[in-house]
Amino acid sequence: IVSQDDKALKLLLSDFHYADVAEILDELDFEEAIYIIKLLDSETTSDIITELDEDVREKILENLSTKEIAEEIEELDTDDAADIIAELPESRQEAVISQIENEEHKAEIQELLAYDEDTAGGLMAKELVKVYGTWTVAGCLRRIRGQAKDVSRVHSIYVVSKEEKLIGRLSLKDLITAKSEEKISDIAKDNVDFVNVKDNAEDVAKIMAKYDLEAIPVVDDEQTLLGRITIDDIVDVLKEEADKDYQLAAGITQDVEADDSILELTRARLPWLFLGLVGGIGAYVIMHFFESGLAEEFKVLFLFAPLIAAMAGNVGVQSSAIIVQGLANDDVKGSINNRLIKEMLLAALNGVVLSVFLFVFVALFKSDTLFALAISISLIAVIIVAGLVGTFIPLFLHKRGIDPAIATGPFITTSNDIFGIIIYLMISKMILGI
Amino acid sequence: IVSQDDKALKLLLSDFHYADVAEILDELDFEEAIYIIKLLDSETTSDIITELDEDVREKILENLSTKEIAEEIEELDTDDAADIIAELPESRQEAVISQIENEEHKAEIQELLAYDEDTAGGLMAKELVKVYGTWTVAGCLRRIRGQAKDVSRVHSIYVVSKEEKLIGRLSLKDLITAKSEEKISDIAKDNVDFVNVKDNAEDVAKIMAKYDLEAIPVVDDEQTLLGRITIDDIVDVLKEEADKDYQLAAGITQDVEADDSILELTRARLPWLFLGLVGGIGAYVIMHFFESGLAEEFKVLFLFAPLIAAMAGNVGVQSSAIIVQGLANDDVKGSINNRLIKEMLLAALNGVVLSVFLFVFVALFKSDTLFALAISISLIAVIIVAGLVGTFIPLFLHKRGIDPAIATGPFITTSNDIFGIIIYLMISKMILGI
Repeated sequence: IVSQDDKALKLLLSDFHYADVAEILDELDFEEAIYIIKLLDSETTSDIITELDEDVREKILENLSTKEIAEEIEELDTDDAADIIAELPESRQEAVISQIENEEHKAEIQELLAYDEDTAGGLMAKELVKVYGTWTVAGCLRRIRGQAKDVSRVHSIYVVSKEEKLIGRLSLKDLITAKSEEKISDIAKDNVDFVNVKDNAEDVAKIMAKYDLEAIPVVDDEQTLLGRITIDDIVDVLKEEADKDYQLAAGITQDVEADDSILELTRARLPWLFLGLVGGIGAYVIMHFFESGLAEEFKVLFLFAPLIAAMAGNVGVQSSAIIVQGLANDDVKGSINNRLIKEMLLAALNGVVLSVFLFVFVALFKSDTLFALAISISLIAVIIVAGLVGTFIPLFLHKRGIDPAIATGPFITTSNDIFGIIIYLMISKMILGI
Repeated sequence: IVSQDDKALKLLLSDFHYADVAEILDELDFEEAIYIIKLLDSETTSDIITELDEDVREKILENLSTKEIAEEIEELDTDDAADIIAELPESRQEAVISQIENEEHKAEIQELLAYDEDTAGGLMAKELVKVYGTWTVAGCLRRIRGQAKDVSRVHSIYVVSKEEKLIGRLSLKDLITAKSEEKISDIAKDNVDFVNVKDNAEDVAKIMAKYDLEAIPVVDDEQTLLGRITIDDIVDVLKEEADKDYQLAAGITQDVEADDSILELTRARLPWLFLGLVGGIGAYVIMHFFESGLAEEFKVLFLFAPLIAAMAGNVGVQSSAIIVQGLANDDVKGSINNRLIKEMLLAALNGVVLSVFLFVFVALFKSDTLFALAISISLIAVIIVAGLVGTFIPLFLHKRGIDPAIATGPFITTSNDIFGIIIYLMISKMILGI
């Protein structure tokens, strides 16, 4: 595509949505992507840049001058602008900020940069439509025409007091359907939801999802209106959170994608595999010590070790996943003890069903009922313990303020493998009277 | 709380958001919940009912007459109304619909009930603000005041032709900032995104998330405007989808929660555990046949089987999770072969690192270099095969139109356990020259 005909290319790309152009650029050679970015004007490219893959964006920004970046920044809403500046190496951040010409935009971006990205402050934008309670509907409409130009989508109009404190909200619809001489404070709704600028981003997402909000105002401890968060940013937070939990459950740290380099993927995967390896070595060592002094005929017990380990791992992952998801959705209530009792009953029920099947198989295959009994009964015990471990660990981590999602996947599997094999060998030995 | 003072209770609850009241009712005894629902008027309770847990809602609706349900339905937007009616037993659906007094509302709900719930038609609501291209801004504002009363949030105003075909969109902001004598068709934006009523709900969610849309119009094959979908419904779709994938990865089918009954949880968990059990029995049978005729000194090989199985399982889950997530986010491009080659290199790299560690351990612990070599080299092979299986199966299922998420978790773990043990025993036997 990138041959020479700039005009045709420009025309072609102008028909696409910026999110589509970003997707095309992600796929292109890096040289070509830079070429296209420089070809288009900053009004178009600024939106494209926000939609690019992080790695691609990083490379492209490296190849733009601080002046060029500042021009892109001028076109963006404050929240996107602050996000992009935060991604730059620190040495360039200052330089880019100093080149932003619009002083108000500059000050707002600097304010946003001060907030932690995982808080409401890190998500919010300064663009909002704000009116004073003392205005009339007619005066308000006149002034909103001015303010709204800066705001790409007007969700709500926020009503503030003289001291800039949030006192209510208003929809454009309310404004249009009201009589022009009415006072804003009379038609505003005063039950306005808001979040504190220091609130956790995930909590903000939960609140907005629960109350079906499309935008929420952000205030400081004195109730002063600072900014607003829109639902599209929340969709991203929810998606990232879900992706992260999913990856942790599969034993992958860091935010990697299928298209990342082999080295990045190794960094995210190897530590968990290493954990599994150490667990496997542990299982070997345990069996090794059980083996010494074990009569030949009983060594067949070891052939069931993978089965026991697999069952312990599966049960542990199931019960921890349910708890992790329940915690994320805020519907795990009641005491830890009740949870453990419930999981014990559940695991016992599953364990009995599975053990009956295993008993029949082993009894027929090996025609040794006592042996079959030993394996089946230890399987029940293993499943119950695995279920309890899988339930307890995430609840415990959550109580300690640690993200319980790390407790799913390889962590639970590995610890249950080892517990499972120990319990299995001990109970079997007891039943077989060795 | 529920003692007798109805007035105080009513007053207390009126201060809460309906989503909060729903949460309280979910926790209450069933009798108390019914009592409260009957106490409040249908305007309030209809919103509460939509927010309840499905099981609780089902029980409450069973205890309301069709007349009472119809009254609740009258208060709801068409999409929520249709969802609730669809949950009723078929015998009651007709009865409830026939009792809806507002004929237009009734017809719209009946239309929505005809769509599959996993399509755009199943998500959309009939409530929207629609204007004709031929109207002037002033005339439009006048009529919108009427239409907007039925629409809880005006996202976009859709512009249609005389034949009701979607031709553009307009924001309230555009309308307010335009001159009153301008014609709608002159100020409308004609690059309006839309989806077909038959489109898949997940695809709609992807489009809205990608383009940061807050509402999208739904049309039929003739481009006739049928309804609109709002972002809050999409947030629910994304959440459900993420929850489902997470549960499948953990070996849990059906949409269960931590608070569901032991029987429901067993139904969701037992089949996967059974799969694991059959896999474990398979592993045992394989080892059993390898065992016969194996010299005593080599039986120690079996003690490493849990390690090999665990590594094969972990690698398989990691690679399948990355593919499943990549497919969900539409960023797995290129041929299957390239994916497999990449995964092979990645697995080989991880395998070599882990095997070196295992080699050192076994060589020191058992002081048998050849034995250590046999185990380490087979570990590399096992990891590579597990990675390929984990990559191939979800890609294959996806190509066949099957949800690849079922291929994560127990399915991959179990098949890799068996593959892993076979490969391990074969390669080890070869190297050890048995």
